[in-house]
Amino acid sequence: MKDLKGACIFGQSGGPTSVINSSAAGVFTQALKEDNITAVYGAAHGIKGILNEDFYDMSKEDSETFELLKTTPSSALGSVRYKLKDPAVDDSDYRRILEVFKKYNIRYFFYNGGNDSMDTTNKISKFLQKSGYDCNVMGVPKTIDNDLYGTDHCPGYGSAARYVATTLMEIYQDARVYDTPMITVVEIMGRNAGWLTAASALAAYKGAGPDLIYLPEIPFTMEKFIADVRKVFDRTGKVIVAFSEGCKDENGTYIAEMGAELAKDAFGHAQLGGAASVLANKAKEVFGCKVRGIEFSLMQRCAAHVGSLTDVEEAFAAGQEAVKAAVSGMTDHMVAFERTMEDGKYKCNLKLINLSFAANTEKTVPREWINEEGNFINDDFIEYALPLIQGNSHPPYEEGLPRFAKLRKVQAGNKNG
Amino acid sequence: MKDLKGACIFGQSGGPTSVINSSAAGVFTQALKEDNITAVYGAAHGIKGILNEDFYDMSKEDSETFELLKTTPSSALGSVRYKLKDPAVDDSDYRRILEVFKKYNIRYFFYNGGNDSMDTTNKISKFLQKSGYDCNVMGVPKTIDNDLYGTDHCPGYGSAARYVATTLMEIYQDARVYDTPMITVVEIMGRNAGWLTAASALAAYKGAGPDLIYLPEIPFTMEKFIADVRKVFDRTGKVIVAFSEGCKDENGTYIAEMGAELAKDAFGHAQLGGAASVLANKAKEVFGCKVRGIEFSLMQRCAAHVGSLTDVEEAFAAGQEAVKAAVSGMTDHMVAFERTMEDGKYKCNLKLINLSFAANTEKTVPREWINEEGNFINDDFIEYALPLIQGNSHPPYEEGLPRFAKLRKVQAGNKNG
Repeated sequence: MKDLKGACIFGQSGGPTSVINSSAAGVFTQALKEDNITAVYGAAHGIKGILNEDFYDMSKEDSETFELLKTTPSSALGSVRYKLKDPAVDDSDYRRILEVFKKYNIRYFFYNGGNDSMDTTNKISKFLQKSGYDCNVMGVPKTIDNDLYGTDHCPGYGSAARYVATTLMEIYQDARVYDTPMITVVEIMGRNAGWLTAASALAAYKGAGPDLIYLPEIPFTMEKFIADVRKVFDRTGKVIVAFSEGCKDENGTYIAEMGAELAKDAFGHAQLGGAASVLANKAKEVFGCKVRGIEFSLMQRCAAHVGSLTDVEEAFAAGQEAVKAAVSGMTDHMVAFERTMEDGKYKCNLKLINLSFAANTEKTVPREWINEEGNFINDDFIEYALPLIQGNSHPPYEEGLPRFAKLRKVQAGNKNG
Repeated sequence: MKDLKGACIFGQSGGPTSVINSSAAGVFTQALKEDNITAVYGAAHGIKGILNEDFYDMSKEDSETFELLKTTPSSALGSVRYKLKDPAVDDSDYRRILEVFKKYNIRYFFYNGGNDSMDTTNKISKFLQKSGYDCNVMGVPKTIDNDLYGTDHCPGYGSAARYVATTLMEIYQDARVYDTPMITVVEIMGRNAGWLTAASALAAYKGAGPDLIYLPEIPFTMEKFIADVRKVFDRTGKVIVAFSEGCKDENGTYIAEMGAELAKDAFGHAQLGGAASVLANKAKEVFGCKVRGIEFSLMQRCAAHVGSLTDVEEAFAAGQEAVKAAVSGMTDHMVAFERTMEDGKYKCNLKLINLSFAANTEKTVPREWINEEGNFINDDFIEYALPLIQGNSHPPYEEGLPRFAKLRKVQAGNKNG
């Protein structure tokens, strides 16, 4: 709806990235400029902050803080993994959200997250529409997994990819330093899509990367893995394997799950991790040489010191665009990226896609970007990924260490009821 | 011996660091300038390369390669872990080294490494002296462990410390993003000395670091650990623990061994590394909350992209000084650092210490730099460590990724006999 006047609220949701705060900076700086936006709120821990009336007055933060947010990793407002129920079954959360929106005259809702969070945004958008409450709702994409549908790529991916490629190039130097055989298995995040693990191919493209790359897109078998490793091992005595935490066998069993009882998160997803040591142990048993299992763990999603400037800027632009589009009357959409190549030069254009479209549909690595054997990545991917990791972004340094934004967090909601 | 004319050979030994190649660049560029040095050799895989006559002619490398070496992590010549026998028991390796030195008229021997490597250097130096063969021998220090005796600090430590502090600051942002309890356990290298783990206190000094820090200098007990964690957990619900892989209980049992049962994988094999997961599993058992065990693994010693410029420059200077001192007639010494503070400004001066002094004596973190409870680090350490991590060193970037030196490796030794 056009010429809608009222407050806006922004929330961060799901696993953090290096640039989710850059999108926040884009949303806040733009929203504070808009005449139709009468107050700018930041929700503490996403949707939970709305339900609990726990949110901050962002006009109380200064411009230096917004600048620092661009290179401050993780979610400065706090994030959440909270699954809204199907409103047909239980609409109490939705009614509570509507109540809070009415109470604070919130007419703009911006939500930053991945697949699950876009599902949340979509459900809220549809409920508000059905209720006849005017509120423009915009999703802002983010995920290191890069698996959101309808967008060329996702904010957060470029920086994580740059971490993965850079770190693998360094590990390559380190892991071949002795003249004795060694197998190194590196585990990389990505629940159902192999985009981030594929980024290890960028290191190989630079001549210092993994010999083998396994994505969740290809069913994994231990026999094939051992045979693949053996081929490289027999030739060079040094093997580096990049491996997605999301790899499963044909029955859908995760490698890490072998014999292990896994905790599940609020969405019922298995908590992954530990696949590196399963494979390293297996390799040790078979090849009897020195092995090392490495997990990139939290580092791959929060290493702002090796962030991609392209990513940081695009994340900011996505946040900005969400506000501009909403103020111009758009609702029920997510900001997305479209790439053009002009004279061989990459350009990222912003577009809007329908929220129902973005919600819960996962985009995986195309089969033709994976080699026939299913254990390496083709040049099509290199061409796709290289533009996304360009530019060296890092926080300002103070005494040799990063300086991160610290929000004042001035309460604006009636948090304790 | 002064006015000694002949070839020099340089070798890299032990675990690599981010700056061991910077010392190599210092040695090579200086040696190539010296009139008394008639040939400059780089040994493949340290002492093994000498024994096998496997070494390269460094005059065949170009100056750009030496410049790139400064920010190329790991050991470009290849490293080795090779323990020389006591010459009183078996002197065959020593006689072989002497034979090779005579064959190539090697009159200068430079060896870059930590405690064990200085022991090797010392033994070779003493044997050559006893044999009456004129050869000036100089050790060049390196170790991320920072545990070499007789030097204020060691090349390699500053960069590793900067990685540890920076990464912990980032993990701090990430690990407290949800409003649910979480315990994060980070395992840091250092078998007998806690210097590198202590560097995590730099992150805490910046307000974004661990709550608890455990060093090998203090005997570890699981009961105390749980009690310490409980105190923080009850107050904040978020706990970050930094602990050294070298932590042992009073009987000398490492943590990984303590929890052998917990740390077994699905096949019943003891997991590798594993100390982080032993503690994380124990914390999960006791507190029932989300836990995460993180190992900094190889990354902490090869992350040149977040290297300390101070460290890179000092490592280079140490290599340079070894050559200058040897050419001026010094032998049987190791280059060491001495710090002065002038007008509050840190300055690192070079000095020489006797090799027998440096060999095999470990320097640990002073007890008074650790708090009374034995679970945190005092400000004395911050004052000590801060100057060592100053300046942002990283390799040149090409297409968004680091560019590392690639040696031509022109054979100069009669490798195959």
